[in-house]
Amino acid sequence: MSHTQQILETHPRALQIDLGVLAACIDCCFECVQSCTACADADLAEPDVDTLIACISLCRNCSDICASTGTVLSRQTEFVPDLARVVLQACIEACRKCGDECERHARHHEHCRICAETCRRCEQACKDVLSALPT
Amino acid sequence: MSHTQQILETHPRALQIDLGVLAACIDCCFECVQSCTACADADLAEPDVDTLIACISLCRNCSDICASTGTVLSRQTEFVPDLARVVLQACIEACRKCGDECERHARHHEHCRICAETCRRCEQACKDVLSALPT
Amino acid sequence: MSHTQQILETHPRALQIDLGVLAACIDCCFECVQSCTACADADLAEPDVDTLIACISLCRNCSDICASTGTVLSRQTEFVPDLARVVLQACIEACRKCGDECERHARHHEHCRICAETCRRCEQACKDVLSALPT
Amino acid sequence: MSHTQQILETHPRALQIDLGVLAACIDCCFECVQSCTACADADLAEPDVDTLIACISLCRNCSDICASTGTVLSRQTEFVPDLARVVLQACIEACRKCGDECERHARHHEHCRICAETCRRCEQACKDVLSALPT
Repeated sequence: MSHTQQILETHPRALQIDLGVLAACIDCCFECVQSCTACADADLAEPDVDTLIACISLCRNCSDICASTGTVLSRQTEFVPDLARVVLQACIEACRKCGDECERHARHHEHCRICAETCRRCEQACKDVLSALPT
Repeated sequence: MSHTQQILETHPRALQIDLGVLAACIDCCFECVQSCTACADADLAEPDVDTLIACISLCRNCSDICASTGTVLSRQTEFVPDLARVVLQACIEACRKCGDECERHARHHEHCRICAETCRRCEQACKDVLSALPT
Repeated sequence: MSHTQQILETHPRALQIDLGVLAACIDCCFECVQSCTACADADLAEPDVDTLIACISLCRNCSDICASTGTVLSRQTEFVPDLARVVLQACIEACRKCGDECERHARHHEHCRICAETCRRCEQACKDVLSALPT
Repeated sequence: MSHTQQILETHPRALQIDLGVLAACIDCCFECVQSCTACADADLAEPDVDTLIACISLCRNCSDICASTGTVLSRQTEFVPDLARVVLQACIEACRKCGDECERHARHHEHCRICAETCRRCEQACKDVLSALPT
């Protein structure tokens, strides 16, 4: 059990979403913050950096959006499903676009391959929370 | 002219959105990061903190979402209108909910009154960029 | 092996710090972002929220500082040891103060106990990177 | 008077630092978040991007560090001077290094010239708060 699941389990109020689905998504968001930051940085050190401009830019955006998604989902005291919904939709779009671009470079750059996987995982985890949101 | 407008004006590529509308929104986003952070903090020092829990929570979320909106909009090299659209929609929702809650406390707490105004201004500025996005 | 270690391993330049020590610290930083965000939020739902004001405030600061430490350490292309040093010192101080405060509430609030552990772990991981920095 | 000064003025507790000095520093921090994000992004669109790798990397770090400095300083309810001190020292170092690098490109790239100015201003504003901290 991740520390995220542990700490959410101790929340004084009843969660509005399945604990496992929520914790998995939060973990994926922070994993994606890290991998997108590291991929954008590694891109800068590649000899073909000029072919990686879109990758760097999408990674930077994806990292920032995943960071705010991870913290918003970590707050369950006054959880607002309508707000979570639009935040998740933004995160899904960011991960999809970044995952697509990283995948294009996956054969030449191992960091892009790993980052594409992290983005796909985060995209799916956000969709899972979206489906689990109370209506 | 704000420094935001100045630095965007020097961008080597042609912007896809009206410079003034874009810069105003970015400035509103960072203003909102600050006022929501300060309002959530001032709430904690109020004797009636237990009536301000929703305000603190919404301010925290609004601050984080405005921060990522401000940085995403500041990146114009590989600007993706479809991504900007969902990010702006999340920011509009965050500002609307936070502004509504802060307004409820505006008569008793001056920081809530100021923060409500900042949220309203940011919500409107995001709507202006949304209307100006290329389709 | 964490995904952080995997992606850092693929960096085109030679790292200036031991990979395992660096990756462990980055993972601790993002873990701490999450646990401090969740602890500050859970505090707000406790009946004795007025005794947890310092805890909420220190958790908020620790979360923000750990977030920037995690991203700065994730960038190894133009890694500047002198900058990493002061960033790590700030993170160590934030984790120490937050860990101390959370520990005070650990017997009454399980989320504070878990968060205190996360802060201690991050504090130690930052000290390990500090010792491993090239002089 | 900036909205930052206005909202800090309404804080229920007496501030430990001169209001004008504090508000000016917070405003400089968020200004620097924006200009460093925009400069790193504009660099990516320049034909000589391969000469701007250090600039991009230092701008990214400076942006993240200024963001956490701006939010930490915006929290005055449980303000901890010892924590503020190390945070400010990290921010001063980040702004100094980023300002130096941007200055190197100021004659060729107008965004670097503007960003260097923003970094210098933020560095000085952080030094001013550092001097004003209670001992």
